[in-house]
Amino acid sequence: MGEADAVRVVAFGGGHGLSASLRALRLLRQQWSSERQPRSLDITAVVTVGDDGGSSGRLRAERGGLPPGDLRQALVALADVDGPDGTLTADLFQYRFDGDGPLSGHAVGNLALLGLMELLGDPVAALDHAAGMLDCCGRVLPMSRHAVSIEADVLGGEPARPDDVVVVRGQHAVAVTPGAVRRIRLRPEHVATCVEVLSAVEAADWLIFGPGSWFTSVIPHLLLPELGAAVAASRAKRLVILNLVAEKETHGLSLPEHLAALTRYLPGLRVDVVLADGKAVGDPEPVHRAAETLGARLSLAPVAAPDGSARHDPAALAAALEAVLGLP
Amino acid sequence: MGEADAVRVVAFGGGHGLSASLRALRLLRQQWSSERQPRSLDITAVVTVGDDGGSSGRLRAERGGLPPGDLRQALVALADVDGPDGTLTADLFQYRFDGDGPLSGHAVGNLALLGLMELLGDPVAALDHAAGMLDCCGRVLPMSRHAVSIEADVLGGEPARPDDVVVVRGQHAVAVTPGAVRRIRLRPEHVATCVEVLSAVEAADWLIFGPGSWFTSVIPHLLLPELGAAVAASRAKRLVILNLVAEKETHGLSLPEHLAALTRYLPGLRVDVVLADGKAVGDPEPVHRAAETLGARLSLAPVAAPDGSARHDPAALAAALEAVLGLP
Repeated sequence: MGEADAVRVVAFGGGHGLSASLRALRLLRQQWSSERQPRSLDITAVVTVGDDGGSSGRLRAERGGLPPGDLRQALVALADVDGPDGTLTADLFQYRFDGDGPLSGHAVGNLALLGLMELLGDPVAALDHAAGMLDCCGRVLPMSRHAVSIEADVLGGEPARPDDVVVVRGQHAVAVTPGAVRRIRLRPEHVATCVEVLSAVEAADWLIFGPGSWFTSVIPHLLLPELGAAVAASRAKRLVILNLVAEKETHGLSLPEHLAALTRYLPGLRVDVVLADGKAVGDPEPVHRAAETLGARLSLAPVAAPDGSARHDPAALAAALEAVLGLP
Repeated sequence: MGEADAVRVVAFGGGHGLSASLRALRLLRQQWSSERQPRSLDITAVVTVGDDGGSSGRLRAERGGLPPGDLRQALVALADVDGPDGTLTADLFQYRFDGDGPLSGHAVGNLALLGLMELLGDPVAALDHAAGMLDCCGRVLPMSRHAVSIEADVLGGEPARPDDVVVVRGQHAVAVTPGAVRRIRLRPEHVATCVEVLSAVEAADWLIFGPGSWFTSVIPHLLLPELGAAVAASRAKRLVILNLVAEKETHGLSLPEHLAALTRYLPGLRVDVVLADGKAVGDPEPVHRAAETLGARLSLAPVAAPDGSARHDPAALAAALEAVLGLP
């Protein structure tokens, strides 16, 4: 890993949000490597392992091990979809069985990852092999070799008791809660961080947080004791990519509050750059002040997909990342 | 496909038996390509699509399409298990989920093939892609794009009526019948042969039948009208590899009767070489005469695995095949 002149980035997240940053990083890597004076980008994705919904939740409940869905999404985002075979194998990993039989709802890649993890007895070895199958341009790691559960104190988490703070258990339940998340926890609380993640953080030039489900995909990384300490100790620069719209779990949470949440869970966290979409931010002043509180400058760029889908546009995000990561 | 000086072989079969001939062909190909004056071997495997037992049977019943198990076995037999990634992907394809949940008993490769066939809508395209994933040294084709059922008239097929001929339906039921198979049929009877198989037969230098379950894996190929005609018309030489021991479905069937069964289902079939294990044959005279009836010479060689497992030894079978296929 990491030639001497490579920019080493570690991107943290969960499902769709992490895919967005990884797709952009893949494009940027491609662009850099095709330049006259090629530069290189060494990409490591770190994925939460708290998912308990859908196919991942069923597989986790039936067979144990890590929920594969978000790991699969990260692999596919880094897959060489311009290569001769990469596209189709990525399509296969994403292909989901329909109908209502025993396989329905499972993506083939979830079953392949599950099989590899059981066969090899180690999720990191399994992910490295899957990355080879997909010709990935980077590495995908789980934040921990052990699955975790996410639970939250939620105001109005039970619609019948709108003024009470109740405990909501499970990533899926937290992600769709109609209430306001007050505090989030991992269960068990002290899970070991994947050692390969700690090494990647130590060697990194940039750590990238977000976009993604703030409470269930971004902040969980900061809650792992070893990982939080490694992030705090790392000499890497830190980039936070803000979301385009609020999700259910962050309903009512302003963008400045998103930034404040990071230091609430990792006190003393310093950030170098906060990247946000100009339109999504609206009046930049409050976000600018919140970024300054973290020691960061605010970088506004048009990174939303032009179709208004509330997703980041990979090429636009790549251009914005180039301006940040390409600095000497 | 097929350089000018390549020996083009098409091997017909089903599960384990076909795997044995394919493993031997892979070894021979490897050996030839590493010689000072390299020769090449162009391998096509043609697989019956009548399986209705185990994982394949469940998938076929639940989701339709071709039963994937025998196709997977053929792919794995041709996989580059000496390459950097081939071994592990082949192991993954063979990995079978244990336990008693919804996935139990399914090999990951069956689920991957099922997904590819559903995704691409064509089993040949799916198999070609899977062959690429496994770095296969040849092509695997289904005898037909449509699944078939195998049924048989069986004397004593119902234990309670040992003197009656009854109809036994389904490949698995026929394979394990305690009675004596009198005649075998495909349902539906007139299924189209995969056109890529017809092209391969037309271009072939050698057609190889067996080893394998004679009634449920070898003879079904001859029952497809177009394929039977193509085999009869082909200018290729024909090799029959006899089994080492009788299976349930061929209990009581002598080796000469195995050979006679071929012409019973494809009258006029001419064979060039019959390859058999010397020990398994015992007195060679009756087999020799049966081979002569087909126009074939009998080649005896020690091709059984030394562990007495009743399986062919890949290296020994490769050496025997070299003596047959290597002839100018």
